[in-house]
Amino acid sequence: MTNLKNLRLLKNFTSFLLILICTLSIAQAQSSHSTEDAKTIDKIYDQMFIDGRCYQWLEYLSLQIGHRLSGSTGAEKAVAWTKSVLDTLHLDSVWLQPCMVPHWVRGAKEEVRLIGNKKGGNIDLPALALGGSVATPGEGLPQAGIVAGVVEVKEWSELEKLGEKGIKGKVVFYNRPMDPTFIRTFNAYGKAVDQRVHGASRAAKYGAAAVLVRSMTLAMDDFPHTGTLIYDPEQPRIPAAAISTLAAEKLSAALQENPKHQLYMKLNCEMLDDKPSFNVIGEIRGSEHPESIIIIGGHLDSWDVGHGAHDDGAGCVQSMDVLRILKAVGYKPKNTIRCVMFMNEENGSRGGKQYAEEATRKNEKHLFALESDAGGFTPRGFTFEADSTVFSGFFEKVRDLEPLFEPYGLTIARGGSGADIGPLRSTKALLSGYSPDSQRYFDYHHTANDTFDKVNKRELEMGAASMAALVYLIDKYGL
Amino acid sequence: MTNLKNLRLLKNFTSFLLILICTLSIAQAQSSHSTEDAKTIDKIYDQMFIDGRCYQWLEYLSLQIGHRLSGSTGAEKAVAWTKSVLDTLHLDSVWLQPCMVPHWVRGAKEEVRLIGNKKGGNIDLPALALGGSVATPGEGLPQAGIVAGVVEVKEWSELEKLGEKGIKGKVVFYNRPMDPTFIRTFNAYGKAVDQRVHGASRAAKYGAAAVLVRSMTLAMDDFPHTGTLIYDPEQPRIPAAAISTLAAEKLSAALQENPKHQLYMKLNCEMLDDKPSFNVIGEIRGSEHPESIIIIGGHLDSWDVGHGAHDDGAGCVQSMDVLRILKAVGYKPKNTIRCVMFMNEENGSRGGKQYAEEATRKNEKHLFALESDAGGFTPRGFTFEADSTVFSGFFEKVRDLEPLFEPYGLTIARGGSGADIGPLRSTKALLSGYSPDSQRYFDYHHTANDTFDKVNKRELEMGAASMAALVYLIDKYGL
Repeated sequence: MTNLKNLRLLKNFTSFLLILICTLSIAQAQSSHSTEDAKTIDKIYDQMFIDGRCYQWLEYLSLQIGHRLSGSTGAEKAVAWTKSVLDTLHLDSVWLQPCMVPHWVRGAKEEVRLIGNKKGGNIDLPALALGGSVATPGEGLPQAGIVAGVVEVKEWSELEKLGEKGIKGKVVFYNRPMDPTFIRTFNAYGKAVDQRVHGASRAAKYGAAAVLVRSMTLAMDDFPHTGTLIYDPEQPRIPAAAISTLAAEKLSAALQENPKHQLYMKLNCEMLDDKPSFNVIGEIRGSEHPESIIIIGGHLDSWDVGHGAHDDGAGCVQSMDVLRILKAVGYKPKNTIRCVMFMNEENGSRGGKQYAEEATRKNEKHLFALESDAGGFTPRGFTFEADSTVFSGFFEKVRDLEPLFEPYGLTIARGGSGADIGPLRSTKALLSGYSPDSQRYFDYHHTANDTFDKVNKRELEMGAASMAALVYLIDKYGL
Repeated sequence: MTNLKNLRLLKNFTSFLLILICTLSIAQAQSSHSTEDAKTIDKIYDQMFIDGRCYQWLEYLSLQIGHRLSGSTGAEKAVAWTKSVLDTLHLDSVWLQPCMVPHWVRGAKEEVRLIGNKKGGNIDLPALALGGSVATPGEGLPQAGIVAGVVEVKEWSELEKLGEKGIKGKVVFYNRPMDPTFIRTFNAYGKAVDQRVHGASRAAKYGAAAVLVRSMTLAMDDFPHTGTLIYDPEQPRIPAAAISTLAAEKLSAALQENPKHQLYMKLNCEMLDDKPSFNVIGEIRGSEHPESIIIIGGHLDSWDVGHGAHDDGAGCVQSMDVLRILKAVGYKPKNTIRCVMFMNEENGSRGGKQYAEEATRKNEKHLFALESDAGGFTPRGFTFEADSTVFSGFFEKVRDLEPLFEPYGLTIARGGSGADIGPLRSTKALLSGYSPDSQRYFDYHHTANDTFDKVNKRELEMGAASMAALVYLIDKYGL
């Protein structure tokens, strides 16, 4: 630091002032958020570590019910079971909020196969149809499915360059990997998922027969990752599937060797009529401002593979445990606190929309909404958003809480909240996303590998405890 | 916050001053640690995510070599392989530093069995002899092993209360669980591990025939956790084993039901003569102060079960990758930078002692030592310690670096470093422990379950990158 010696005096003076002000600031924080708060938070964590229920609930949801796509029997069972658990918690009310949900079914296992050239036989590529995809044509007939050439693209611009001439009748293979250099993996997902969401229709515009998408993960393995697609109503609906990252590498290498390689692809999925389903809600009525509502939630539906353990069984059981634990530590909330297990986040967000619509219709006042939908990993903090007319004031208040979260390794930051609570933005509530460590999330997300054994008990419990601590503080101090 | 309105004015003024000072302070931090530093750290992370080697190295060490207790063939192979990897990194020197190590062998699989009463048959309790334990008497004879009553204790004070009358000829069963309410699991370990380390001799004092210890973990499962014990030279050496937490619960329940339950216990372990082994060292020679040395390290030995993947294969491959990556990003260190893969941390720390002895004998100047021996999990920060005559000055300087680590979620704190570098304290070097997320560590620690598949590639790589970033900054700015 030799080049900096001329700054030493300023630095020492600045340091002195900084320490002085920090001391003042801490003293002030301690007065506004008392040692009683620190003690209550400690009690919440202790209770969760010693007597938390979320892990055993997740075990049941994962192993006894399993995956639960909207409209499925699993989803029906999950609704009934969740309500039955809430019924044991001595809450003030527990109810089901009806909503209609899409009903998409995968059908028989999909087949995607690279047709061998002279050198070798066919190569099966582990695949999952994307949620909402149509089947390949001729479904049900013998020998049904597509046989077509493949064209690999990494950037959208390549589609236009290839044009109808290069694409018509072919399978477009989107192979732009998630960027591993983002520290928060959700940012990498955000930059790559457009291929999965919009790839089918953008390729259909040029006459593609179908699309394959490299799985949205940073892991190199043989688990395909499903997820929703959105069809542009102006384009024909073509079949779409994700293949595993290892399969994507294999396919890319095969096309390098022989660009005329052909692919066999058969999807058996189908969109049926909408079905009735429910959000599941439990409530502790506020002792001072019962009309003012705080919600915590996750989504009860999952994709139709694995257990939906991290996505989003974790968020549901954590939200339920927040209500339990507030009662267990003897805290009487001033505001009404609800946990909401939303239906249909994965392929329609109908539950979230329904909840917000009813809230608006009934003129309910929502103070704060917190969603856990980023997995049951070690908590790292919370991110906050709100309508721009109210955000600054809210955020200043929650930032004041940060010192209380420091012993638990949690930070307070601006950022997104959750798909289910997003529609509450118009009610001018403060919205927050629970933010656990993100490194492993996309190893499991939307795969057969998102199973109960991938969830660590303590990590899950710490998430629930940190959510309970935040809800406690916001309830106590208001916004 | 209605009760706080009278503080509002002070608060606003304080906030204003705080922002002002923070701005000054950030400006000053940015001048002392330039945007060039931020860019270099970014480059280090990017390079690690895109082209890191530590994960593939750990795969080899885990799957091709496996566990490697001091004195074993695995340890020999690990030394040779580690040197061969360092030889590919174009370092300035690579060498083996000889040291003698203890050579303890487990022998045939241990047996611990609760002898059934009229109601049921015998119950096998999953067990591992503690490292260094003697065998049960009569080893090799037919029907060898101990059959004895069991006395359960949770606190040391109970031993004295029971006295020789209650203990003599029995197996003392230490069943004080790790306290789950510590956020950092190492603290819970620290409060419980005395049972494993000192339990045998303290029970031998009252004539115990053997001891069993509840495994040092917060997980409830059937993996016994081994680990070292220390025999008090004044007491007879009695056999000692750990049983799984589920077995501990079972045994405790059985004793509740019938305190006269007997146990069969057979350990076949043996301490052989010391064997020669090595620390493995690689070095980049400093361009400005070659006589000034920075080391990063982990320990190459592991317990004789599982792969020793987290403990401490992770620390070794990370340390090796730090040297590789500093070269890969084109950084030329001012000081000499060594990675040291220490031998025998688990049952003797001979490698660490040998390294420090040689450093002292050769009058080497060690500036900084960093150890990674807390698993290959998501990095959370670094802890620092040093001889009290030098610590404050050092710590002030490293704390100045914290803003550069914030984007990576890392904190700088006072705390322990590592068992291998601990002996360097007397050289007045700054010592640091790499501190990853601790929640899962004791699920795997010293068990057959500490295998390669438990390590996440990104978490491991982020650890190596954060270590490289710290070494880069300390090398560049000195202490």
